[in-house]
Amino acid sequence: MIDILARDKFTDARRGILELPHGKVETPTFMPVGTNGTVKAILFRALENMGYRLILGNTYHLYLRPGMEVLKGAGGLHQFTGWNHNFLTDSGGFQVFSLSQLRKITPEGVKFQSHIDGSRHLFTPESVSEVQEFFRSDIQMVLDVCTPPGIEHKEAEEALKITTDWAKRAYTRWTQRDPSYEGKIFGIVQGNFYKDLRKRSAEEICSIDFPGIAIGGLSVGEEKEVFKEYLFHTAQYLPDEKPRYVMGIGTPDYMLEAVEAGIDIFDCVYPTRVARNSSVFTNEGMIALKNERFKTDYGPIDETCDCPVCRQFSRSYIRHLFKTKEILGPMLTTEHNLHFMYKLMEQTREAISLGAFKKFKADFLDRYYRGK
Amino acid sequence: MIDILARDKFTDARRGILELPHGKVETPTFMPVGTNGTVKAILFRALENMGYRLILGNTYHLYLRPGMEVLKGAGGLHQFTGWNHNFLTDSGGFQVFSLSQLRKITPEGVKFQSHIDGSRHLFTPESVSEVQEFFRSDIQMVLDVCTPPGIEHKEAEEALKITTDWAKRAYTRWTQRDPSYEGKIFGIVQGNFYKDLRKRSAEEICSIDFPGIAIGGLSVGEEKEVFKEYLFHTAQYLPDEKPRYVMGIGTPDYMLEAVEAGIDIFDCVYPTRVARNSSVFTNEGMIALKNERFKTDYGPIDETCDCPVCRQFSRSYIRHLFKTKEILGPMLTTEHNLHFMYKLMEQTREAISLGAFKKFKADFLDRYYRGK
Repeated sequence: MIDILARDKFTDARRGILELPHGKVETPTFMPVGTNGTVKAILFRALENMGYRLILGNTYHLYLRPGMEVLKGAGGLHQFTGWNHNFLTDSGGFQVFSLSQLRKITPEGVKFQSHIDGSRHLFTPESVSEVQEFFRSDIQMVLDVCTPPGIEHKEAEEALKITTDWAKRAYTRWTQRDPSYEGKIFGIVQGNFYKDLRKRSAEEICSIDFPGIAIGGLSVGEEKEVFKEYLFHTAQYLPDEKPRYVMGIGTPDYMLEAVEAGIDIFDCVYPTRVARNSSVFTNEGMIALKNERFKTDYGPIDETCDCPVCRQFSRSYIRHLFKTKEILGPMLTTEHNLHFMYKLMEQTREAISLGAFKKFKADFLDRYYRGK
Repeated sequence: MIDILARDKFTDARRGILELPHGKVETPTFMPVGTNGTVKAILFRALENMGYRLILGNTYHLYLRPGMEVLKGAGGLHQFTGWNHNFLTDSGGFQVFSLSQLRKITPEGVKFQSHIDGSRHLFTPESVSEVQEFFRSDIQMVLDVCTPPGIEHKEAEEALKITTDWAKRAYTRWTQRDPSYEGKIFGIVQGNFYKDLRKRSAEEICSIDFPGIAIGGLSVGEEKEVFKEYLFHTAQYLPDEKPRYVMGIGTPDYMLEAVEAGIDIFDCVYPTRVARNSSVFTNEGMIALKNERFKTDYGPIDETCDCPVCRQFSRSYIRHLFKTKEILGPMLTTEHNLHFMYKLMEQTREAISLGAFKKFKADFLDRYYRGK
């Protein structure tokens, strides 16, 4: 499913091509998050022009709204939304644990109440795979049990056991999919912040023949050094020949760490969420355009950026749009941030091909942190 | 300033080309409203692609935010916003009367408090022309006194007298502009809902050699028949060789009435404002996409529309975007509505050239009203 085109000499970084039902995706790649079947404040055609070929949709949200009747009627998520490249959809597990009320885990699955209207639902490993098949997701994720940092070993182990059991059941359900459906399924490694459990979860999940493997439960508020430690610790147990995905990371520094650990795919709401609060990436760190100091700054967001926003609009103008609460403000900052992320991954891929990833990462981060 | 290319045989409708500093504009034309130097929820490049070459900016808003320091520093409104075609800016008079606190009219001008921070300001006919010169507006409007419907004849006459006096002063100030500034200035006819005052105001304003004339104080809540009556009554006194502008109209039916009365330019927030509440134009009348009946309607907003939104997105999907409060909802409906307005004016211009305006209007309105 993934062709490795180049490997870095000094790290585990690798460059590849992912073959998916809606076309090829160059890796490492960042996935913009389209929770409700739209990446907030931007048109799909702009994402397509930037080069994106894989975005994320949230199963929990889409299952509740617009709901299965509407999505089935449309013929799936691509037809409904008009995005004709690949969708990865998550399992909804994380949202059940973070958004919904009164969730209850049983061996069968997880019962929860909608955060929108309080209606009651049951997600099982099988039903969630079926829902994602109805979406016609290019990559579906298995239902897992997400645990917060700080829990006891015993509790983390319990969650791990259920996660493995559910992964097997989801995989079995996926093997029984409709022959016309070509989407893949990824398993998810959990284990909280316990190294023995991370190892065990990785071994158990990798023993199932998933087309790809994800690392869950990281970047949930822990220190960066802890994140790195558990990322590298977990990544070493993943099979080299399969695509690897780390969920929930989307800052330049975390992404470059993940690339170094041999990760191919990541996603996060961060670049689009902070954009809506006027925060933008530059090669010299992040800036918040609302700030008074940009009032008469007629330069672009980033002098070195070639995105349509930086070619046409000034910091001063974008600051004005945020001060007047104009929708164009979030539209422009979202476009810039996603362009910045795409370019960063493009440069990363080139650096890997040139055998210069380590230097590229060091130079980028030196400038990025210094600018702050 | 306006070249009349064609005239309708049975009505006063006319087709022309307006020559402005930032290029030619085909008339009759609708101007999208860009209050804060952005047309809400849409990129300028989308407006440009549709064919728009003239949009409106609000002097009152821009004068207060970002303010003159920022706009002067940028070199004017075009440079600040990145819109490289024409801007018409209003005089701020209407906003002073509708938005600001504690306004006080004296012969000198109008004192008011900002609705944003309560700061105190004075607009005079001269200062407002100067402000618009700093904007580098392609068409500036004179400061006028706007009165609500229902006032006494005496009060309307007083307002008229000041409006005429201010128009003369604004015109004089405009003749003293910097030689590098090529923007035009339009006078505004007032007179409330009194026919003698409308006639008098038209005669007084037209006796000043403005490059163009606007009709103000209509479409302020009166019945459509009253609007039509006063529109046609006023229009008859306007010189044929100058561009004519009616302020504040932007529904298909009002626009077609105005075209019939020989009007060349109109503006209104209506198409963009209602779009943000999910209401869209179709050839069979307006529909509100939030409505339950569009839940599984996978057709486009308008089957006959060739805009990028109708080519790619369904009513069902756009309804979902509004139900989930996604920014993409207003983005798509705004794009469709402005495209619809542009096309309507394009068809109107063609109908005038073909000598078929009367039939075009009747057919369009018949279908438009029937669809409701």
